[in-house]
Amino acid sequence: MDFNLFRGLTNNKLCFNLLLMLCFFVFLCSGVIGSGLAIFSKHRIQDTFLYRYSLNGYPYMAHHGDWFAGKAVGMAILNLAGLTVNVYVTHLHAEYSRETDSYLPHRVVQAWELQQFIRHTSTGADVVIMGGDLNMHPQDLGCRLLMSYTGLRDCYTETAKFDGCENGITLIADNLFVGKNELIPFEKGIRIDYILFKGSSKTNVYCDFMSTTKGSVPGHPLPYSDHEALTAELRLESKIPAQTGSDKTQDTPTEKLAELVDTLTEARTEVKVGLHCAERMRYTAARTGVMGLALLFLELAIAAVPCFTLGAEQPFPRISFYLLAALCFVILLTTSLLYIFYTMELKSLQGAEDQMRLSVGSLQEKLRGFPVAQPHNAPQRSPVEKLPSALDAEE
Amino acid sequence: MDFNLFRGLTNNKLCFNLLLMLCFFVFLCSGVIGSGLAIFSKHRIQDTFLYRYSLNGYPYMAHHGDWFAGKAVGMAILNLAGLTVNVYVTHLHAEYSRETDSYLPHRVVQAWELQQFIRHTSTGADVVIMGGDLNMHPQDLGCRLLMSYTGLRDCYTETAKFDGCENGITLIADNLFVGKNELIPFEKGIRIDYILFKGSSKTNVYCDFMSTTKGSVPGHPLPYSDHEALTAELRLESKIPAQTGSDKTQDTPTEKLAELVDTLTEARTEVKVGLHCAERMRYTAARTGVMGLALLFLELAIAAVPCFTLGAEQPFPRISFYLLAALCFVILLTTSLLYIFYTMELKSLQGAEDQMRLSVGSLQEKLRGFPVAQPHNAPQRSPVEKLPSALDAEE
Repeated sequence: MDFNLFRGLTNNKLCFNLLLMLCFFVFLCSGVIGSGLAIFSKHRIQDTFLYRYSLNGYPYMAHHGDWFAGKAVGMAILNLAGLTVNVYVTHLHAEYSRETDSYLPHRVVQAWELQQFIRHTSTGADVVIMGGDLNMHPQDLGCRLLMSYTGLRDCYTETAKFDGCENGITLIADNLFVGKNELIPFEKGIRIDYILFKGSSKTNVYCDFMSTTKGSVPGHPLPYSDHEALTAELRLESKIPAQTGSDKTQDTPTEKLAELVDTLTEARTEVKVGLHCAERMRYTAARTGVMGLALLFLELAIAAVPCFTLGAEQPFPRISFYLLAALCFVILLTTSLLYIFYTMELKSLQGAEDQMRLSVGSLQEKLRGFPVAQPHNAPQRSPVEKLPSALDAEE
Repeated sequence: MDFNLFRGLTNNKLCFNLLLMLCFFVFLCSGVIGSGLAIFSKHRIQDTFLYRYSLNGYPYMAHHGDWFAGKAVGMAILNLAGLTVNVYVTHLHAEYSRETDSYLPHRVVQAWELQQFIRHTSTGADVVIMGGDLNMHPQDLGCRLLMSYTGLRDCYTETAKFDGCENGITLIADNLFVGKNELIPFEKGIRIDYILFKGSSKTNVYCDFMSTTKGSVPGHPLPYSDHEALTAELRLESKIPAQTGSDKTQDTPTEKLAELVDTLTEARTEVKVGLHCAERMRYTAARTGVMGLALLFLELAIAAVPCFTLGAEQPFPRISFYLLAALCFVILLTTSLLYIFYTMELKSLQGAEDQMRLSVGSLQEKLRGFPVAQPHNAPQRSPVEKLPSALDAEE
């Protein structure tokens, strides 16, 4: 949401109440056009961090606008009576067509980076909460990847009490801002906004109540937004010491590991499809560029003819020459930019695929029951007391 | 380093030995032109993560090339006999002139993002090691920011034994690839490459030995690279249980906090200077664009004159009209792209400044001795057992 727009809207009752209730907020700007993510909190925000996804659609798909909005994941760290609470907020690339979703590899890579970010930054957190428009159905690959890797649980499926739209849908057909065609084949709507949570070795978290808004603002014809708002009431319970154990010693069960390997393999396949598409697009850009260059040379050759055969008349009108030269210039410029863009896309996809491969290897090693902690090419050592030259960093 | 180039160089003795010695590696690609970061390890790499800096120079400064190289920080997680070791590798934007360093705000923001990344991802690590070309002298703002915020210590100042170039310099004047002008006013060279480390509540880390290469490869006229290579030998010692305490209970001493606030304030000032520059550049781009547009309208008006005064001769040759129109088009295109680019730069700088402001506030509150963990607008609660509607996420 544009923060200036939001600021301008404070005469709106919801926004005004929100600002009255919540003393602390952080606005994490990620886009070209002023878009970004916002977190409002009753409790002091201790620290923040923003991670911009490496892939986010294409700049030439301006009518979709995702590239310009600059999708990212933001984090805010709160301290609630001694407990560290990591709150994440994100917005992934939209799905414009369920059948021919050309953005699927980008969204899968975004889900991959999202789970990496949450997993690596929440190690010290007692409670983890993530809210966002994931633009994915609950059973979609990205959702499964995110939830199985991070261990986050869905408020909607875990809540004790729910009050809201049927099946928890957040993009409803009755919304005036939503085109009915977008929802085909889901007549009533889809659930693509989530609040996810998890506890830790110190804290249990339960979802007591969840609700969504149900269309228009009461007493007004228009809704607040194109999506329904979600609210969750979470209850934190400190674990009794006997229950408490280090996270590191709690191994993931074998079947969960196997499921994770399957999900990761599926994600790799999707990313490989994306890689193939990006390679094809880059090849097309290169070929078009070469054709533009050939056309320019051809034109120069034709223009040179009257110079050699002095007195001969130029067979084409001069204006067409200038227009053709301008066309060649535009083709060359556009294809060069596209070539660079597709190269960057390829590198990001390849990077994600490499990291996924490494993770699959690591998980499979765990599954086979290998001692993961063991140095690979060294004899077994006693618990680390001294590791001479164990770690040499080369610059 | 280009990985394909690296692969091609395996007949080089150093590379060959490196590949023989180290079974595991990860290449984290971050740039347009195949550049990136690499980590080689004797021990299995469990997990990786890459964070691309939001600011990294300007694409039109192609002769400097930093923008195209896409600077980032990469992380690899190793498991050494039960200890989690987080290894970071990075490369910050180069400093081309010590006196008029127009990239300083970018480098400060990179150092800010680097410390954020390390701090937030290393919470669960027993040992943290960071190696990289920081392109900053030891007393530079970015270095102080990084080391005081993360608690990382410099191998060079902590090592028990050192063998290498005088004062640990890594960019030496004798290197054939280094221009003497780059080093003015430091005749012999500068120290801009580092290996930093820290332990945890479970592990003490000591640097027993550090060395740098000293110019050319023995027996060859050329050096391996334009920078000298660093090697460090670290010794890990597990802390005895009595020593062990939770990291959270170890408060940072007041003087350290005050120093950190000072460093952060200095960084904010530098970022504000960058903001001012970016605003000025964006204004210049906008003004030039408007002038280009005015020129185009003027030209169209002149072209329209003969149409209204039928039969009147066009006062200028036709070719100059086409050239002028092409010039206007190029000006408009360039200034539009520059305007978008400077807007993105402004947003990244503003985002970093906002985050720094928030951190200064949080640190100052700690300094004043306020109960940081306390909810701001709620009465004091007993240790968290139930926090009804404490956390409402709004989508």
